[in-house]
Amino acid sequence: MPITQKGLEQIGVQKGQNFNAVNVGALEHLDAYKAVHPKLAREVRGKLFLKDLLDLTGMQLSMNKLPAGISVPFYHQHSENEELYIFIKGKGQMQIDGQNIDVEEGSLVRIATKGTRCWRNNSTEDLYYIVIQAKENSLRQDTFEDGVPVDQEVKW
Amino acid sequence: MPITQKGLEQIGVQKGQNFNAVNVGALEHLDAYKAVHPKLAREVRGKLFLKDLLDLTGMQLSMNKLPAGISVPFYHQHSENEELYIFIKGKGQMQIDGQNIDVEEGSLVRIATKGTRCWRNNSTEDLYYIVIQAKENSLRQDTFEDGVPVDQEVKW
Repeated sequence: MPITQKGLEQIGVQKGQNFNAVNVGALEHLDAYKAVHPKLAREVRGKLFLKDLLDLTGMQLSMNKLPAGISVPFYHQHSENEELYIFIKGKGQMQIDGQNIDVEEGSLVRIATKGTRCWRNNSTEDLYYIVIQAKENSLRQDTFEDGVPVDQEVKW
Repeated sequence: MPITQKGLEQIGVQKGQNFNAVNVGALEHLDAYKAVHPKLAREVRGKLFLKDLLDLTGMQLSMNKLPAGISVPFYHQHSENEELYIFIKGKGQMQIDGQNIDVEEGSLVRIATKGTRCWRNNSTEDLYYIVIQAKENSLRQDTFEDGVPVDQEVKW
């Protein structure tokens, strides 16, 4: 079931042979974007999926702004993807398998496929977070093992 | 070559059967963390790799703070991982295959393995960004295809 994402027409994409770059604007304006949830048949304001625009092949990500007092209205699990939630501004709570965790700027939460998850903004200010999903157990090596230095002086 | 990450001892980890949660503190304090680069044999202040602490299996991520006026001193490519750079505060530039791109809050850049990349903070304020790496072409399905709704009323 494909995602319908509203608001993409306002985002410019720069493409090169080896990259895609976008600018989605200041985080406070994320509510200009809406994702249409096909199973719930409703629009989610402040949720921006970017895999397609960035031509990502190893992960999906969404940029999110959740207003004060709002809870996600359902629990969900995943089939084969692990999720990572990165909270960058504001305060809220996640609930995983019935356990509540306070989150705020600087909180990061990994959830395995089977985790039953929900989250809310139980504060009086907007909550900002990024969600990444990648296939569980798909990473074979990382960082300094996977990185290859290029023998060339940096010039700007 | 394993990463040596300094400053982890100040981070508490909450673990459940299906999750790991950490709080690394306010973003402005990211420079309390240092990653030791084994190939350059030097410490990089304000770079915090979190895969091991979060038990991530499909991605690596780092949380980053780069001071005003600083450029990464080398170019690099990757062997099998795609990278995603998410800029969340401040201004700077990325250079990919010789092309300069201005970045700021709300900029996201995907780079394929072969892209020769570098970045700098050419502004007068700190630059904050998140880097994710995942295996290229490893994602098979995402979001509403991979997500599984749980038929249970949300209770907080």
